[in-house]
Amino acid sequence: MVDLTLTDNGILQQAFIRIQQDVDARFDAFLPIPSDSRTRLVEAMRYATIGGGKRVRPLLTVATAALFGVNRDAAVRAGCAVEAIHAYSLIHDDLPCMDDDTLRHGKATVHLEFDEATAVLAGDSLHALAFEILSMPETSGDPFVRAEMVAALAEASGFNGMAGGQMMDIAAEGANFDLHTITRLQQLKTGALLGSAVELGAILGRLPVESRGNLRNYARDIGLAFQITDDLLDVEGDEGAAGKALRKDEKAGKATFVSLMGADDARRQVGALIDQAIGHLAIYGSEADLLRALARFIQNRDR
Amino acid sequence: MVDLTLTDNGILQQAFIRIQQDVDARFDAFLPIPSDSRTRLVEAMRYATIGGGKRVRPLLTVATAALFGVNRDAAVRAGCAVEAIHAYSLIHDDLPCMDDDTLRHGKATVHLEFDEATAVLAGDSLHALAFEILSMPETSGDPFVRAEMVAALAEASGFNGMAGGQMMDIAAEGANFDLHTITRLQQLKTGALLGSAVELGAILGRLPVESRGNLRNYARDIGLAFQITDDLLDVEGDEGAAGKALRKDEKAGKATFVSLMGADDARRQVGALIDQAIGHLAIYGSEADLLRALARFIQNRDR
Repeated sequence: MVDLTLTDNGILQQAFIRIQQDVDARFDAFLPIPSDSRTRLVEAMRYATIGGGKRVRPLLTVATAALFGVNRDAAVRAGCAVEAIHAYSLIHDDLPCMDDDTLRHGKATVHLEFDEATAVLAGDSLHALAFEILSMPETSGDPFVRAEMVAALAEASGFNGMAGGQMMDIAAEGANFDLHTITRLQQLKTGALLGSAVELGAILGRLPVESRGNLRNYARDIGLAFQITDDLLDVEGDEGAAGKALRKDEKAGKATFVSLMGADDARRQVGALIDQAIGHLAIYGSEADLLRALARFIQNRDR
Repeated sequence: MVDLTLTDNGILQQAFIRIQQDVDARFDAFLPIPSDSRTRLVEAMRYATIGGGKRVRPLLTVATAALFGVNRDAAVRAGCAVEAIHAYSLIHDDLPCMDDDTLRHGKATVHLEFDEATAVLAGDSLHALAFEILSMPETSGDPFVRAEMVAALAEASGFNGMAGGQMMDIAAEGANFDLHTITRLQQLKTGALLGSAVELGAILGRLPVESRGNLRNYARDIGLAFQITDDLLDVEGDEGAAGKALRKDEKAGKATFVSLMGADDARRQVGALIDQAIGHLAIYGSEADLLRALARFIQNRDR
């Protein structure tokens, strides 16, 4: 469970507890252990998806969908699709040939708990599962909604989104990227998937594309703030609380928001982005309070 | 280009040449080189998708869709989605932690031509691209068709399909699998994706699920025959012609159709399966001649 004392926000704390339970229950149902030699694969998929992570992305989907009165079960399912992409990306990013990490959510990474081949296949299988979930009639009875969600998530995860950002991140080592390039890199690596979490909520809510500007701006601003706080936590955070290795960018000589702006300016930038993100929600009433609280949580998070 | 002298079939030869050109042209258009540090990633994706492979899967999609008068361009796009999944799976299967292969389609494998991290990300990006292609209105104007294609392909590629079969294949080493288990393994590992190639053609053709039995049986039979000929070629084939390493199963002590049945019985089984596959097409007239020729090609292929 996430420590939310910093947010001092009962609504948000309740929302986090509820989405964590819902997402765990969903993945438990999506991933029954088969009675053949795929057991190890599905166990690795369960290890990577059940009982770990803050579930910020599914909460973004659910909170956005709730603006438009979408059935919560449908929104949780769509949120799980985004979380499956997030989980697959962490498994692959942690591989020895990528970031070579040993710790994730305070547990051994998948390739250490299982093995590298199983980790590659568990990531691939979660990637496919995301699109399976989105294309099920149980997620939305409207095929247009299903197809639009698939289009949004596929773009956010591919070479024009997360995977492309990860490639830029690898190239960043010793590349002396400037603030503009780092912003673009992070927009792809982290921002695209966070944005898709909001977008899926809007699609489920049948919000026309031309009316999505405010929510997209909100998502873009919290996505950038999320990455800057990630860089701040990487420099100032505690490895035990983070449940993963920190200060790797510095060791690798990679430019980050903090190395380019300094910690104080980075913190000020986060504050400005979160204020701006909340400003984009001005057209919504109290039904957007959860999205506002989520933005403040991103500003104040300690892990 | 594939040597088709064994098929002695002008229609099929023309169809292969045309689909190879069309698929190459499509991937060229899907994968423009970006003007940032994602260049290497997109170059690896292009290396893995343009100018290699027989294109059996896209041809299956196009030939099936043609039964129902589907626009060829739409069918080629859907076939490219299946081929993108196939290409991603080859990249990941060839990784050092998986089959550790050095040669594919007569060229260095992606992780050798580029590097392991790029290979993981290129596979992941092609995986996402497949669903991007299927969810584009250009592939089908009908969102129900798009969503149904995504559902079919996602299931075929995940833990209940190709990735699950790959996991079983890894477990097969020294496991003494019997013929029943090998059949199930190959149905997942190879059969599911070949089946999805036919299924996508039927979905584009708006063939109702309850009328797809014959085509599904055809796909199941040629899929199994395809894998048995793969095992035969692995034992009897020439590495130069195959463009990849052979006789790896024997070295790894894995049971195959050939090790369990013997080469002669395996060959007879392929013949029976192909006759049976063609039998399932009896309800179609000359418009199914390409699917019939494809089945014979699978029986007689030398690579």
